[in-house]
Amino acid sequence: MVTQVEYSAGIHPQPVSTNKVSTYTFDHLPLQYGGQLGPVTLAYETWGTLNAERDNAVLITHALTGSSHAHDVERPDDVKAAWWNPLIGPGRPFDTSRYFVICSNVVGGCYGSTGPSSPDPRTGKPYGMRFPLVTIRDMVRAQRILIEHLGVRRLAMVAGGSIGGQQALEWAVAYPELVDRVAVVAATAALTAQAVAFSEVERQAIMADPRWQGGDYAPGQGPASGLAIARMLAMITYQSEEAMELRFARRPARNSSVASPSRSPDLGPRFDVEGYLYYQGESLVRRFDANSYLYISRAMDLYDVSEGYPSLEAALRRIRSKALFVGIRSDFLFPAVHVRRLADNVRAVGGDATYVELDSPHGHDAFLKEWEQMAAALQSIC
Amino acid sequence: MVTQVEYSAGIHPQPVSTNKVSTYTFDHLPLQYGGQLGPVTLAYETWGTLNAERDNAVLITHALTGSSHAHDVERPDDVKAAWWNPLIGPGRPFDTSRYFVICSNVVGGCYGSTGPSSPDPRTGKPYGMRFPLVTIRDMVRAQRILIEHLGVRRLAMVAGGSIGGQQALEWAVAYPELVDRVAVVAATAALTAQAVAFSEVERQAIMADPRWQGGDYAPGQGPASGLAIARMLAMITYQSEEAMELRFARRPARNSSVASPSRSPDLGPRFDVEGYLYYQGESLVRRFDANSYLYISRAMDLYDVSEGYPSLEAALRRIRSKALFVGIRSDFLFPAVHVRRLADNVRAVGGDATYVELDSPHGHDAFLKEWEQMAAALQSIC
Repeated sequence: MVTQVEYSAGIHPQPVSTNKVSTYTFDHLPLQYGGQLGPVTLAYETWGTLNAERDNAVLITHALTGSSHAHDVERPDDVKAAWWNPLIGPGRPFDTSRYFVICSNVVGGCYGSTGPSSPDPRTGKPYGMRFPLVTIRDMVRAQRILIEHLGVRRLAMVAGGSIGGQQALEWAVAYPELVDRVAVVAATAALTAQAVAFSEVERQAIMADPRWQGGDYAPGQGPASGLAIARMLAMITYQSEEAMELRFARRPARNSSVASPSRSPDLGPRFDVEGYLYYQGESLVRRFDANSYLYISRAMDLYDVSEGYPSLEAALRRIRSKALFVGIRSDFLFPAVHVRRLADNVRAVGGDATYVELDSPHGHDAFLKEWEQMAAALQSIC
Repeated sequence: MVTQVEYSAGIHPQPVSTNKVSTYTFDHLPLQYGGQLGPVTLAYETWGTLNAERDNAVLITHALTGSSHAHDVERPDDVKAAWWNPLIGPGRPFDTSRYFVICSNVVGGCYGSTGPSSPDPRTGKPYGMRFPLVTIRDMVRAQRILIEHLGVRRLAMVAGGSIGGQQALEWAVAYPELVDRVAVVAATAALTAQAVAFSEVERQAIMADPRWQGGDYAPGQGPASGLAIARMLAMITYQSEEAMELRFARRPARNSSVASPSRSPDLGPRFDVEGYLYYQGESLVRRFDANSYLYISRAMDLYDVSEGYPSLEAALRRIRSKALFVGIRSDFLFPAVHVRRLADNVRAVGGDATYVELDSPHGHDAFLKEWEQMAAALQSIC
């Protein structure tokens, strides 16, 4: 079963543009934790052209609340128009004059791929929490089906940051014969206890919101305050003490136009950082599905590259790709020391691994901000 | 108006014990942000005896969810019986054979002092959010009224950690003529933007819980899930990545007897760290008032020792006490570098300040765990 439908990106209808999101639907995806999901639709975008040898494809994998829209052909110089925009295009690290660049929304997502907000074929109603547990391995398996559909024989590279970095790592371990090079950015072999803990607080905030309704909320009627609180916390973990001090320090709020998630009056003067977090929370509520947040963040927590192998070394020994690992000095969600250790572990079992550290105060988010350092790091293997 | 009533500590009735909590009630407390509060009751405990010169008193100040129960005379060797138990008693840093040690529950608290759960004299009903904004300065001013009532002429020392450390610092700046020595532990001149941000996420979780009811919940009917989520997050910030890795790593939950705050089913296997956080959340709900949490955490955020002075230097120049500042290597809520800088700033304006750093992986909580290092640090000025 193959369909290919074009529609515009995003939850809200967009103006007609040359940015096209395609979809591919296949019958079923066997799942790591048992059972299967089907039919499965993946939304994806591509830039550049697949060569005759069908080996110049680059797969880019997105982070928790990301979409397939890594690049914007209409606004290639607008850093806000797409999430890795400055890195993609002619003459850029992901050079679209050389590479066929692919980015797909993950299984479990809400930007066109099958996820908890998709209709369950058994009932015609949204899956909600009847959606099965999907893992990083499942996301990668679905991407593999997509690239086969696109005629790709080998991937010149897989690259992603955060959960996208976990997917890149999983590609190199699960399908070593298909991946020439891999860039694992701000991601590790498995999350720390602290990162799992933050993640669980975020999910509890969503599920404690009575509007969550066990996941069975109507579109637009979801757990807005819970999701906003989750996003507020996540935004702290994506930055750093240093970055927040540089940006906000203890400045009072400049304006209080954005209400807090709880819609409660302020307790004394409001700080600028609080207004910023309210704004970030509200923004995510407008663009993201709460159940997708639960599923994708859980996939991030559960990921352990060694699962199913005798040891971490046994898993990493499978890698045949030239591998780049990028850590961020100020990242406390995926600490640089753990990224470096992962690179060391790959080298220790005979792999070709390079470690580069971004010298940035911006924390985890640096992989979406430090364009020059990111470009320099990627150029080393692109 | 002076009353002195003895009753047992804690929200729940305790067995009759020789641990006695006393109270002192006075007519009114003028407030830093305007208006006044009255009548005001402070719950307090004392150990040791005030000398004839009335200058051997030590005031100990507690942290966010603490109480006056810093020491337990019945179980002096049980570290869990009172929050600074191993540091108080004959032969210990706060030597009760030499010092008259005092600890009072802060204004705004829920362990016997006047706070949001106390009856508002205008209505006879709990204040709820009609309780006025109270600050660290207000808490200290109330403590000053208490020590005068107790006949104390000078304080040999004021010591506290976290919000208690902010109070100790405020004592030295506000009342330099009364304080011989001060120990400011795991506290700084003002919170970082990151710490304020965490604090606000915690408050939003409480206020977004519909059972919060704008603060007008009946006793035992409060925002249990919101407060539990707030506590889960706070517990992460009191520890460190290193400490959580040592304690939990990625171990699966040992038992799932404690439900999550949202009472939702698990999304896949549960981690040990998650079960631990659920337990901590539930424990706080049983012992602490949600509105007190809002007020005291806000006082922590708003505290800036320089407020009302021309500069930070002008504030710190007032200090006449011999001052000990204790930072914790792994504390990310009150980073050691900021504690050290505060000590440097005091010395730079001519003060007598020493900085000691606890070499601990336990994060902010180390001041409630690293007894040997804490004792050694305190002995240097006790």
